[in-house]
This record gives sequence, structure tokens and C-alpha cells, in this order.
Amino acid sequence: MPKISQKGQLMPSSPIRKLVPYAEQAYKDGKTVYHLNIGQPDIKTPEVALDAVRVHSLDILAYTRSEGSEDYRKKIAQYYAKNNINVSHTDIIVTTGGSEALLFAFGSVMDSDDEIIIPEPFYANYNGFSIASDIKVVPVISKIEDNFALPPIEEFEKLITDKTKAILICNPGNPTGYLYSREEIKKLAVIVKKHDLFLIADEVYREFVYEGNEFYSIMQEEGLEDYAIMIDSVSKRYSMCGARIGYLVSKNKEVIQTALKFAQARLSPPTLAQIASEAALNTPQSYFDDVIVEYEKRRNTLIRELKTIDGLKVAEPKGAFYCIVELPIKNADHFAQWLLESYDYNKETVMVAPAAGFYSTPNVGLNQIRIAYVLNEQSLIRAVHILKEALKVYPNN
Amino acid sequence: MPKISQKGQLMPSSPIRKLVPYAEQAYKDGKTVYHLNIGQPDIKTPEVALDAVRVHSLDILAYTRSEGSEDYRKKIAQYYAKNNINVSHTDIIVTTGGSEALLFAFGSVMDSDDEIIIPEPFYANYNGFSIASDIKVVPVISKIEDNFALPPIEEFEKLITDKTKAILICNPGNPTGYLYSREEIKKLAVIVKKHDLFLIADEVYREFVYEGNEFYSIMQEEGLEDYAIMIDSVSKRYSMCGARIGYLVSKNKEVIQTALKFAQARLSPPTLAQIASEAALNTPQSYFDDVIVEYEKRRNTLIRELKTIDGLKVAEPKGAFYCIVELPIKNADHFAQWLLESYDYNKETVMVAPAAGFYSTPNVGLNQIRIAYVLNEQSLIRAVHILKEALKVYPNN
Ligand SMILES: Cc1ncc(COP(=O)(O)O)c(C=O)c1O
Ligand SMILES: Cc1ncc(COP(=O)(O)O)c(C=O)c1O
Repeated sequence: MPKISQKGQLMPSSPIRKLVPYAEQAYKDGKTVYHLNIGQPDIKTPEVALDAVRVHSLDILAYTRSEGSEDYRKKIAQYYAKNNINVSHTDIIVTTGGSEALLFAFGSVMDSDDEIIIPEPFYANYNGFSIASDIKVVPVISKIEDNFALPPIEEFEKLITDKTKAILICNPGNPTGYLYSREEIKKLAVIVKKHDLFLIADEVYREFVYEGNEFYSIMQEEGLEDYAIMIDSVSKRYSMCGARIGYLVSKNKEVIQTALKFAQARLSPPTLAQIASEAALNTPQSYFDDVIVEYEKRRNTLIRELKTIDGLKVAEPKGAFYCIVELPIKNADHFAQWLLESYDYNKETVMVAPAAGFYSTPNVGLNQIRIAYVLNEQSLIRAVHILKEALKVYPNN
Repeated sequence: MPKISQKGQLMPSSPIRKLVPYAEQAYKDGKTVYHLNIGQPDIKTPEVALDAVRVHSLDILAYTRSEGSEDYRKKIAQYYAKNNINVSHTDIIVTTGGSEALLFAFGSVMDSDDEIIIPEPFYANYNGFSIASDIKVVPVISKIEDNFALPPIEEFEKLITDKTKAILICNPGNPTGYLYSREEIKKLAVIVKKHDLFLIADEVYREFVYEGNEFYSIMQEEGLEDYAIMIDSVSKRYSMCGARIGYLVSKNKEVIQTALKFAQARLSPPTLAQIASEAALNTPQSYFDDVIVEYEKRRNTLIRELKTIDGLKVAEPKGAFYCIVELPIKNADHFAQWLLESYDYNKETVMVAPAAGFYSTPNVGLNQIRIAYVLNEQSLIRAVHILKEALKVYPNN
């Protein structure tokens, strides 16, 4: 029997996947499960996007241009202009989700065994994309005590080798909720220019910023044109994760030409999804205003409730809709499984994502979980209450 | 300025891409261009698929399961059962086009520098996917004189090294139109078992088989369960290339588990496209019957007309909708450009795909072109007539 690849063996499973059978058993046991674990928003997709597909007039569902239609990309450039980001449609490649944009970026700037520095904890699938691309993630640790702020620049410089080709940040951060300041972006700009590295920024949560904080994109930083590659996505912005539309954006022509070759090999991003996503650009501002108000309320409620739990530490999120929580336990993997398998509070329990999957350094974050606040306020209050009660009786502290 | 990857430099551009500016100029010059170059069928997508999207009742366009919904995969398994292929829904992963299925297959069974043997000429993007996956294509030459039949098994064996992990065939073939016989599949089965290799078969043109010839899938071959990986796609079957839905199918559990990890990293195949593709499974048989009749007519017409051209050789296609044609010229790249740039026959010309891009051996197939018969019969007759007239006056024979 032929063997699968080493790469295939190394590919991580989703950090939540292991818990799914336990969740299924919990349902069978008649338990209600509050899902604090997932990044699939409960917010409705804008009607304008859903309707555009309902009234489509295609008679052949054909390939589009590999980089997305010119019209669509011009509208995307207008969207960016409104967000103080000055790019042309020729700086944009439409991809199959931000996921594919990340793969194209990795493939365009790194070869086998090249290294990419990523502040951890980070979006778990960066690990998978790195293994698939045969490159090495070099983590630089950011700390819950600092709210997961950018680690000192010296920490980055210590890690830079001949093999280092890029630094990747997620802003605002999944799973940290951290929002990089203008000053932090400027520090990164200095270091990538000094060491001739690409700066890749995953800005898929751009709109999800609270308390009127400023979002500063790497694309706004002057002098970074040749270095900056931005990853974007319609998934969370318009609550249309299933569309599978994202963008790779760069003013570096060589990067765009190269990414385009990867795009041509896979022919075309999904056509129906592009129709929906192009229409989504006409979503009224009130939709976003409402969404932000809703998430900010959820965030405030979540943090307030979490702070009533003894021995718990939480990094206050300024953006996205996640936060990392440190619990007075030893092993969050075990705790998460126990919550589903052995615990209930009046037939209710919670599902959480153990945070170890968001670190690439082994044995870090073992007592941390990620909470996604994609539930309504009442459910969040209930879920945190269950968590509190569970911690009182959890036997493996 | 940081440098792009070597891999990015090596990624091929589409063999047709270079010609696009010349085609655009030809339009501007008021020429009509007959497109013999593209694989985008002009056949209408089944109404049942287009309608399913029109009546969707989603209010959140959410991610689906990474492997596609269980319901959809169960229906796919039924489709296979009707085609004498016995697989369970757990043997199927729904992908973003056959393209992504190929990438998952490559990633699951090969590491950097591993080798895959492919009869050439082959689908040009196998080159791109191989470079993206950092693996090496080892071509085994099939010949126009043999109609591009399977090269002798000794030719394969000569090429097998420690690094060889798989053999890839396309059946029926793009660009050759060749249909492998049951005996040829059996020969391949023997060799992959003997050398412990995977046999990957790209069967996206399964339905396009003419003259009542038998299509024999690698999934039908007994004893090949652990070795066979089938690539499939809805793109051509239902003329819905823009959906971006394909399948990776294997009875080897380890392959499926591994491919699933790649699938999980990119989260989900497109949701709207899955709705359309699931509905497409209800396309009435008459649709396919009509399509096959239409393609068979086109094929017969094309071949008949081509044979009236002096010094031209054509491999008679038994499947798919392409054929390779050898012309009495030296360089098809130049010829294709000349047709668009400098030639017209009463303000009409043709666009063809130079075949060199379908070979990985340098300097092979230089006098060959690929013709896609995705035009109606009248247009095909007209296009071949123009080709004939052009060859009479082409100055660089
Ligand atoms: C930080 C981050 N980047 C990228 C993605 C990929 O999203 P998509 O491929 O749906 O655009 C996600 C999805 O959760 C994410 O959280
Ligand atoms: C032989 C072959 N395989 C795979 C594909 C990929 O098609 P898709 O990604 O649209 O399924 C094509 C498309 O032309 C093809 O010709």
C-alpha cells in the first residue's frame, strides 16, 4: 500500500474537530450546547447580496477571469478608497476566500524551507497553509499579560535568518482580538524594509473595531508599497463565509503577476459567489453600524461576565470577535472535552476552542481557550454562567 | 525590494494568455475570431441547477462542512453507482473544482522533490499544480502516430525511481481526446501495485465518450482500492465551470483523512455552488444524450474538415472535446500569434492553443496545436476553412 506524504501526516486537524464527536454525543444526551467555539457569525447576510443571486440571469455558469472581473475589482478598489486605502483594480486578485489568498501569498514569496515569522497565538490554519506550502512558521510569542500587543521588535530581529522571507500579522487578530496601533505598524515597516522581507497582513476583520479605535492598514503606510501584501475576505464582513471570496492586494507588481499565475492554474474564483459579493459592496452603511453596535455590546457583556470568574484572565479584545481566556485549570483540551462529555448545568453546557491549536510552540497556552462572541447577549450571559459553575466542580484543576 | 519565490518564477503562465492581447487587438481591428482555443463549453447549464440558486432560502450564507454536506455526498455516491462505480459518501471530498482536488491529491501523496509520471501531452495546469506543490513532473511521451495511446509499460518502468510516488492520467484526455481502454487501465494497475505507487486519474470528461466506446474508470478496477485516487468535476459535465465544484474520490481511508485535513484548512467549498451542483444531479438523462450527440457531430465534422488540409495530422478523439493537430509549420506559437495579428480571411480569423504548453519536455509538440470543439458545427466548418486558407499563405512554414 503506497504511503501518504510526510506533509500530509504533519497537516494539523482543526483544533475543534476532535471535540465534534463529544458535541454530537452531548446533543444525543439531550444537552443544549452553547457554541463559544466557532467563527461562523449568526448575523444575517445583507439582503442585497442574497437577492443578487436570486435574480441571476446566467444561462451558462461560466468561468470568470482568473483574477476576477475588471468591473468587480474596480468596485473593490472604490470600497478600499472609502477605507483610506488607495489601490487600483490591477493591485487586486479575487481569490476563493482569504484562505486561498494566503496560499497564493505564501507560494508567491516563499520556497520550501523558507521561514515566516508570525506573532502567536495566531489563526490556526496558518499552520496548515504553511505545511501545505512546505514553509516553516517561526513564532514570536505575544502575551496575554500585554493584551497580545506586538512583541518588541528585538524579539523579531533575533529570529530573522537567511531563510526568513516574510512577517505575517493578523489585524485585528483572530484569536487575540488585538488591534495593532499605527505605531506598531510603523515599527514593522522599519524592520521589513531593513531586512528586505514581505509584510503580509491578514485584515479580514478590518470592520470589526470597537470603542472608536483607529484601524490602520499596512496599505496606508507610505514607503511600504513593495513590501506589503494584504489578505482580505468577504466572509465575516458581510457574514457570507460560504461565498468563498477573498482578495490578495499588493502594489508590488511582481507579487501580483506571480499570484496571478497561481490563480490562472486554478482557472477562476466561484462565479455565483462573485455575483453575491459584488452586490454586497452596495450594503448600506447602517448594516455595518448595526453589526458593530451588536458586537460591541456582546464584547462588553462577555468581558463583564468573564471578570466575575475567580482566577480567570482575559485579554480585552479591541477588534474581531474573539478573545483568549486563561482559566484556572491545567489542560484546556481535557476541560473542553469534559464540558461536553461529563458536565451539564440543568442540561446545558458550553463548547470552547482549546487555545493550544493557535500556538505553534509546543506546551504554550495549555490553560487557555478562545471564545468567539458570535452569540447574542442573553446566550453569552448564560454560557459564561455555565462556564463559571463548571469551573467550580471541574475535578482536574 | 524583497524577492518573489523561485517557485513563483517557475509557475507557467497559461499557454493562451500570451495570445490574449493579440486577440483583443484583432477585435479592435474589426476581425471576427473563431475560438478553437478554449475549454469553456457553449452548452447551456441545466435549468434545474440554475433554478436551484434562484430559489435559495438562505438568510446566512454560511460555511458548509469542509468535505461537503453528507446529503450532497450521498447523492454523488448514487451518481457514481449509476456509472458502475461503487463508492460510499465517506470516500468523497467535495472540492473547489477538480483543480483543488488535484492540489489536495498532490499534497496528500507527495513531498518536495517527489516525482509523478504523466503521459504527455497533458492538461497544462498539471505543470502549475506540480510547481506549486514543489514536485517534479516526469513525462512519458505518447505519440500522435499512436493516437496518444498509453505508452508501453516499459517506458513507465524506465522512469520509476525512489522518488516516484504516483502516476497521473487524464481519461478521457485533455488535450488528446484519447480514451484509455480497460486493458490499458489494467496494465497501469499492475505497475502501480508492483511499485507501490498511487494511480491518480483525472476523469472530469467521463461523460464525453463517443461512438459508444466503453469508459472504464480506475475506480472499477478490482484490487486497486488502496492505490486509486479519482479527480472529478461538475465543470464540463453540466457546463457549469464557474460553479467551482469538484470531487476527490478514493477508497484509501488514509488518503481521504489526509485530503480532509487540507480541506479543513481552507474551511469550505463554495456554498451556492454546492446548491447548484447538488441540483444538477437531477439533470434528466436526455440533457446528456443531447450533449453527446451534439459533441459527436461536432467531432465528426471537425475531423472530416481537418482531413481536407494537406500535410495536417490529427489524432482522432474518442472522448472529451479536444484534439491535437500537427500542422505543416515549424512553430505553432508564432503561427497562433500571426493568425491573430497579421491574418484575416474576409475579416475573420481563428484563435488556437499552441500545444507546446501541454508538454513538459522542451521542444516537443512545437508544430502542434490543440483544438477545442466547443463551437457549433457551422462555426467549426468556417474556422477550419480559415485555417486551411491561412496555411496556404503563412510565410514561416
Ligand atoms: C484570521 C483569518 N484569516 C483568514 C480566514 C479565512 O477566511 P475565508 O477563507 O473564509 O476568507 C479566517 C476565517 O476564519 C480568519 O479568521
Ligand atoms: C483535464 C482537466 N482536469 C481538470 C480541470 C479543472 O477543471 P475545474 O477546476 O473547473 O474542475 C480541467 C479544466 O479544463 C481539465 O481540462
